[in-house]
Amino acid sequence: MQLIIERGALLKALGHVQNVVERRNTIPILSNVLLSAEGSQVSFSATDLDMEIVDVAEAIVSIPGQITAPAHTLYEIVRKLPEGADVELKFASGEDPRLTVSAGRSRFALPVLPAGDFPVMSGDHEGVTFQVLKEDLKRLIDKTRFAVSTEETRYYLNGLYLHTLTEEGSGYLRAVATDGHRLALAEMPAPDGSMGGPGVIVPRKTIDQARRLLDDGSGSVEVTVSPAKIRFNFGQAALTSKIIDGSFPDYGRVIPKNNEKIMRVDSGVLSKAVDRVSTISAEKSRSVKLAIEPGRLTLTVRNIEAGQAVEEAEIDYDNDAIEIGFNARYILDVMGQITGDVVELRLNDASSPTLVIDPADQGVQYVLMPLRV
Amino acid sequence: MQLIIERGALLKALGHVQNVVERRNTIPILSNVLLSAEGSQVSFSATDLDMEIVDVAEAIVSIPGQITAPAHTLYEIVRKLPEGADVELKFASGEDPRLTVSAGRSRFALPVLPAGDFPVMSGDHEGVTFQVLKEDLKRLIDKTRFAVSTEETRYYLNGLYLHTLTEEGSGYLRAVATDGHRLALAEMPAPDGSMGGPGVIVPRKTIDQARRLLDDGSGSVEVTVSPAKIRFNFGQAALTSKIIDGSFPDYGRVIPKNNEKIMRVDSGVLSKAVDRVSTISAEKSRSVKLAIEPGRLTLTVRNIEAGQAVEEAEIDYDNDAIEIGFNARYILDVMGQITGDVVELRLNDASSPTLVIDPADQGVQYVLMPLRV
Repeated sequence: MQLIIERGALLKALGHVQNVVERRNTIPILSNVLLSAEGSQVSFSATDLDMEIVDVAEAIVSIPGQITAPAHTLYEIVRKLPEGADVELKFASGEDPRLTVSAGRSRFALPVLPAGDFPVMSGDHEGVTFQVLKEDLKRLIDKTRFAVSTEETRYYLNGLYLHTLTEEGSGYLRAVATDGHRLALAEMPAPDGSMGGPGVIVPRKTIDQARRLLDDGSGSVEVTVSPAKIRFNFGQAALTSKIIDGSFPDYGRVIPKNNEKIMRVDSGVLSKAVDRVSTISAEKSRSVKLAIEPGRLTLTVRNIEAGQAVEEAEIDYDNDAIEIGFNARYILDVMGQITGDVVELRLNDASSPTLVIDPADQGVQYVLMPLRV
Repeated sequence: MQLIIERGALLKALGHVQNVVERRNTIPILSNVLLSAEGSQVSFSATDLDMEIVDVAEAIVSIPGQITAPAHTLYEIVRKLPEGADVELKFASGEDPRLTVSAGRSRFALPVLPAGDFPVMSGDHEGVTFQVLKEDLKRLIDKTRFAVSTEETRYYLNGLYLHTLTEEGSGYLRAVATDGHRLALAEMPAPDGSMGGPGVIVPRKTIDQARRLLDDGSGSVEVTVSPAKIRFNFGQAALTSKIIDGSFPDYGRVIPKNNEKIMRVDSGVLSKAVDRVSTISAEKSRSVKLAIEPGRLTLTVRNIEAGQAVEEAEIDYDNDAIEIGFNARYILDVMGQITGDVVELRLNDASSPTLVIDPADQGVQYVLMPLRV
């Protein structure tokens, strides 16, 4: 294999794939990136066995071929090369079985492992394929991923539940995440061809990688969903991932439908007030009490060691007074995703879930479970 | 105690002192800041028993008094208050023995400890006092502190050795740091009144705090050096610290005087080349080999696991060829402080210390101990 590639193109492609590579690997080849040069292109693949990212870049290939080399080291080297440099990548299986990386007066020789040993993820040919605008997919992810559980015992909550459904005759593509304490739901009109695909739980790491790749440019992404895998095709880069083998809970049951005590408040005011009073809260249970009465919200945090904090805010509310506690972090996470100036809390009582609505985005819903205060 | 203070002034003063406060303290009052309100000022003191920072701010004091309250919590609260807010601080020893912090619709009550229990560092009245420009003191610190040892067994190297000396009839104020592997020295003409003061080893943490306080504004700092303490008076803020009780080694012996093989190289070129080749080096011994011959420097790193890196650079050198190894990190630290475009290495042989000179700043010298390569 021998090729010349511009440093910027090489850095971009390696940057896309190297994040998948774990820092410590018991299987040595998983630390490597697979380089495949053919025609006027070189492709880069990295995998952690659950997920694979492949990216492609233009190159002047003089000898086609394949080899694998340490992903992080190669990325670091290329990052430190001068901007605009032409980089030569060369591997011959002869006397010096190493990948040489040359640019200007720098030359590196890196250990390799055979391309044939590199695990390649098989594609699924079942399932549905549809196009979605990058902006729309970003929105589904951003509005929901903060609620994905990190608790390993409930592995089926460690991902974003992506599925389609029909409501009142219209089809929707919906993302849902929950950790049992809060739930986030975002939906959009179902893209053409998406209806009828399987509902899948996409692992957190896959979501994070997909989100990174969505930052590049606009346009659309091709998504293929099969019962065992999901694939995001961004054009040059493509991400294929196993999905979590489990059943996502029937989340519809925890979304309150008939909460009639409606409080509206400036989302910035609520957010800042919660942030301030929670300075006092103990690190584990960051509990804040909301005392809601007509026209006035009083936030209180009490902590035996650190003292007490009280703050008031004006609200739009004309129902019975209610006192309810929440984890401050969870309120702040939701406020971070509210698009409009105003947020709406739909409450029932101190022990029932509260529904949070973004009046500026009807396609999202948040549920907060109360804490005892 | 009762006073009103503008949020910006309060934040600045607390910001200056709260860094001294350790996150974990076995002595509870060391987590607190001492507030002392009198006249039209409030002063803020924090200490870790080795060092004390006091800062002063203007305030409208209605009831003078003193109290201590948790430094980090108070700082966090004030940081989160809206810009421009007037903050009321109030403490009465009566029914609610807490410090209340109020601003707008926020009110906090913080636990306190008696001001009388707060350890206050005694001042020394011996020693010398002199004025030094902030710019000059910054330079002495920046050019040297990276070489301060972090090895606790050689505690007398865990600080910056600040002392005066006379050379060829002129007085100098000099800062020296070494960890046994490299040495950094920076000097300036002795400020009026500084000559004859004791040489002191100023602890790393004190140097770091002093450096932070030097970032505020220009002008000069009053430095008082006594055999047991050093004091930096920045105007409103003042830092007093114990010094390290030990003897700094006779560093003059390790500064080579007669190294005659002189190599000059663009400091940016050397810095980038070392950074690139060291990508390959093992994490512990980041050893890079310099092969120096007339006109050409070849940098090599070999690592059994990670491969090999070679880079060439043009140099100005016309002496015998020499091969010498250094820790890449140490070269980079020194290059980071070179003011001019060119750096000068004065070499003897592969096993002797190398002197590094900044032709644009004659008042600094660096010594690098070679590694066997």
